[in-house]
Amino acid sequence: MSKKVTIVGAGLVGSLLAALLGKKGFDVQVFERRPDIRKANISAGKSINMACSARGWKALDLVGAGDTVRAAAIAMNGRMMHGVDESLTFQPYGKEGEAIYSISRAGLNQILIDHADQFENVNFNFEHRCLDIDLDTPEASFETKDGIQISHSSDLIFGTDGAFSAVRAVMQRLKHFNYSQEYISHDYKELSIEGKGGEFQMEKHALHIWPRGSHMLIALPNPDGSFTCTLFLPYEGDNSFEKIRSEQEIKAFFESKFPDAIKLIPNLVDLFNENPTSPLVIIRCFPWTYDDKVAIIGDASHAIVPFYGQGMNAGFEDVSILDELMTKYGDDWKVLFEEFQTKRKPDADAIADLALKNFIEMRDLVGQDWFLKRKKIERALYETFPERFVPQYSMVSFTDTPYSEAVRIGNHQDLILDQLAGYEQILEIIDKGELRSFIESNNIIEQ
Amino acid sequence: MSKKVTIVGAGLVGSLLAALLGKKGFDVQVFERRPDIRKANISAGKSINMACSARGWKALDLVGAGDTVRAAAIAMNGRMMHGVDESLTFQPYGKEGEAIYSISRAGLNQILIDHADQFENVNFNFEHRCLDIDLDTPEASFETKDGIQISHSSDLIFGTDGAFSAVRAVMQRLKHFNYSQEYISHDYKELSIEGKGGEFQMEKHALHIWPRGSHMLIALPNPDGSFTCTLFLPYEGDNSFEKIRSEQEIKAFFESKFPDAIKLIPNLVDLFNENPTSPLVIIRCFPWTYDDKVAIIGDASHAIVPFYGQGMNAGFEDVSILDELMTKYGDDWKVLFEEFQTKRKPDADAIADLALKNFIEMRDLVGQDWFLKRKKIERALYETFPERFVPQYSMVSFTDTPYSEAVRIGNHQDLILDQLAGYEQILEIIDKGELRSFIESNNIIEQ
Repeated sequence: MSKKVTIVGAGLVGSLLAALLGKKGFDVQVFERRPDIRKANISAGKSINMACSARGWKALDLVGAGDTVRAAAIAMNGRMMHGVDESLTFQPYGKEGEAIYSISRAGLNQILIDHADQFENVNFNFEHRCLDIDLDTPEASFETKDGIQISHSSDLIFGTDGAFSAVRAVMQRLKHFNYSQEYISHDYKELSIEGKGGEFQMEKHALHIWPRGSHMLIALPNPDGSFTCTLFLPYEGDNSFEKIRSEQEIKAFFESKFPDAIKLIPNLVDLFNENPTSPLVIIRCFPWTYDDKVAIIGDASHAIVPFYGQGMNAGFEDVSILDELMTKYGDDWKVLFEEFQTKRKPDADAIADLALKNFIEMRDLVGQDWFLKRKKIERALYETFPERFVPQYSMVSFTDTPYSEAVRIGNHQDLILDQLAGYEQILEIIDKGELRSFIESNNIIEQ
Repeated sequence: MSKKVTIVGAGLVGSLLAALLGKKGFDVQVFERRPDIRKANISAGKSINMACSARGWKALDLVGAGDTVRAAAIAMNGRMMHGVDESLTFQPYGKEGEAIYSISRAGLNQILIDHADQFENVNFNFEHRCLDIDLDTPEASFETKDGIQISHSSDLIFGTDGAFSAVRAVMQRLKHFNYSQEYISHDYKELSIEGKGGEFQMEKHALHIWPRGSHMLIALPNPDGSFTCTLFLPYEGDNSFEKIRSEQEIKAFFESKFPDAIKLIPNLVDLFNENPTSPLVIIRCFPWTYDDKVAIIGDASHAIVPFYGQGMNAGFEDVSILDELMTKYGDDWKVLFEEFQTKRKPDADAIADLALKNFIEMRDLVGQDWFLKRKKIERALYETFPERFVPQYSMVSFTDTPYSEAVRIGNHQDLILDQLAGYEQILEIIDKGELRSFIESNNIIEQ
C-alpha cells in the first residue's frame, strides 16, 4: 500500500490530516511555507484562540491527539456578556457539562505537528513555498528559503493551505471552476488581558463578549491566566479602524464602549498600534477535487468568518469524513473524492451562512432583552424535550449533525420560538415548570 | 489638459473608450494581447454575433461611430421560434419599428478600432500582453510577441480586458476586494447557416430560436446572407457536450431536436468538431476602481451570460456614464470613479440576474402557450398605455432606464400580468379592443 501523499500546508488541518494518513501507513510529505512553529517564538496569548467543540474533538480523538489537546484547553461553559454599564450576564451554551474549549492556535498547531511527526512515514518540510501544481501528474513544486526550486511527485496531493491557498489558485484556472471571495465589513485586531500573578482577572470558564451593535470585543481564556481578546470593527466609516488611530481616539473609544475592559488592558494603545489589523473573508468554491489526484480541504475550500467558532471544527470534520470514506471506498480515490465534495459542499455552505448570521447575534442580539427571552425559552424546550428539541447552537457545537441539517431544523425551531415568545405568560409558565403541559395542550411542536 | 491614459484591451469596450477619450483630447495608449483584428483573417459568420440595442447605439453615437455601425448591422424585429414539428412562431420584441441589431463581433471591433485610430492622440499597440500593474504609480507592464518587456506610465489606467482581466487579477490581491466567478451549467459552440447565392435561407429580420428546455440553438443574421448560430448545451450529463461526440450522436441529436436547422447546415459534423466548446461565466467584483488612478469596466468588472443580449450594451453604457461624469466632475477622477462604481454596481448586478433569468425564458418558456399568452397581454398593455406600461424587455433594450430600475418595475409588472392572465376572457377582451375599459373598471395598474 504505502501510497505517496503530498500535503501542502502544515496548519491545523494539514497537520491533523498528516497524522491521520501517517497512522494509516501512507508515505506523507508535508510542505509548509512558514518556519517550524514549534521553534518559533510565540508567547501565549499573542495568537488567535480557537474554540474547539464536538466535531473538533471527534477528529482529534480519531488520530489519538484528543487527550494532549484537552490538557492544554480551557472549558468555556457559556457566554459572559459585558454591558456598557459594566453589568455581567451569563448565558450557558448548552446543558450542564456542555462546553466549548479555548485553545491557542499556535499551541494546538505545535501539538498536532508533534503528533504527526512521531510517525516515521510522515516528514515535514518547512520554509517551502508552493509555486505550482501539475494537477495531472500530480506534481507539486516549491521554493525553499534559499531560493532553491524542488519538485515532488506523489499519488495524491492535498491542499490544506488556507484561505489564500496556492493549490486552489491553480485549480481556479480550470474551466468551470466556481470561486468567490467575499470580505465582510469588519476587520479584526488581537489584544490581550494579562493574568495577575497567574490569576484570571475575569471569569475563567466563559467566552466574554462586549456586544455593541456595529462592533464587538471578545476574550477567550488561556492556561496562564491571560485572555486573548479580539476587537471587531468596520474597516471604514464611523467607529472604524480607519477613524480610530490616535492615542486619544483609541482611549476615548474604549472608555465609552468597553469601560471595564480598558481597566484590564493598561498597554492598550501600544497593543492597538503594534498588532496588525486583519480582514475577514468568506471563500466559496467548487469543485474541491481534481480527478483521483488532488483535493483541497479546510479553509482552502471553505473559509468562513469566526463568529460560530466553527472554522477549525469544520476543517477537522473534513478529515473525519475523509477517514469514513477511506473505510467505505478503500483505494478508489476517484469515487471517494466525488462523494466527499458532493456530500460535504452543502454543509460547508450551511456553516458559512450560520457563521455570518451569528455575527449579528453576537455583536447585537445578545445584548437585547427579547433575544435573551428567546434563548431562555429555547433552553427550557431543550431541557423539557432533550430528544425532540436540540437547539441549533447545540446541534452545531455538541453533535456532528450535518450543518445543512442543523440549518433546516433550526429554521423550523425559529417558527416554534416565534410562536412561544408570542405568549405573554411564557416565562412564568417556564418558571412554574409547566412548559410540557402547556406545549402539549396547545399542540406546539407538531411538525 | 492632455492627460495620459493607458487602456488595457482593444476589444469592443476598450476601442469605444479609446475613441471617446481620443475625441476629448486625452493622450491615449491602447495595449492589446492579440494581433490587430483588422489584419486578422476572420471570415464573416465565424465569430459570435452581438445584438446592439439602445444603450449600445447611445454610446456609439456619442463617439460618432453609430452610422458606420448601422450600415453593417441587420435589424431583428422579434424572435422566430422554431418548433420540433418545424412550425414557426414570431414574437415581436417591441412596438412597430423597435428592433435589436445583429452585428458580428469582429466586424464591430474593426470599425471601432478604425474609428479610434483616426485620432492622432490615440495609439494602438497590438500583441502586448499585460504582465502586471503598479496601481499606485500607476504603471502597466507588458510583454511583446518578441518577448520584450516594456513599462508604460500614465495618469489613468483603464482595464477593458474582458472576463479574464489581467488588470482585475492585480486588484484582486488587494485587501477587501470582493470577487466571484460563476460558471453556468451550459457551454456553447458556434455553428453557421450559409446563404444560398447571397440569399437568406430563413427570415432575415429575426433572431431565430429553437427552444428545447434544457438546451437551445439560436441564429443571428449577417449581411452576406448567412446566419451565425450558437448551440447551448450542458457541459455534462444527458444531451451534453460530454455525451454528444461521434458523427452519429451529433446527427441523431440535431435530427431529433432541430430537424429544420440540420437541413440548412450540411457541414454540421465538421463545424461541430472543428469549432471550440466554450464556457459561460458570470463575473462579479467590487470595487471597480483604485484611488483616482485605475478603473475596470465592461466584462472586466461585470461579465454576464449572453441571454439578454446586453453584455456589450452594458459595457458600452459604462462608457456613456463615464462621459456624463466627466462632464459633471471634470478632472476630479477620485470623486468621478467613486460615483461611477457606487452608482453603476447595482445596475451591473441587476442585468447579470436578468440575463440569467432570460436563459430560462429563451430555452424553455418561449415554447409554452401560457408564456406566449402573457407576452400577448404585456404587448397589449404596452400599446394601450405606452407611457404607463413599458415592458421590462423594452425598458432594457429600447431605453436607458437603469437596469436596477427595470428590475424593480418588472417585478411590479409581473404581479399585474399574473392578475390579468387569471381572467379567462382576457385574450378576447384584448382582441375586441376593450383592454383599457376592462383595466379601468377593475382598478388594475394602480400605483
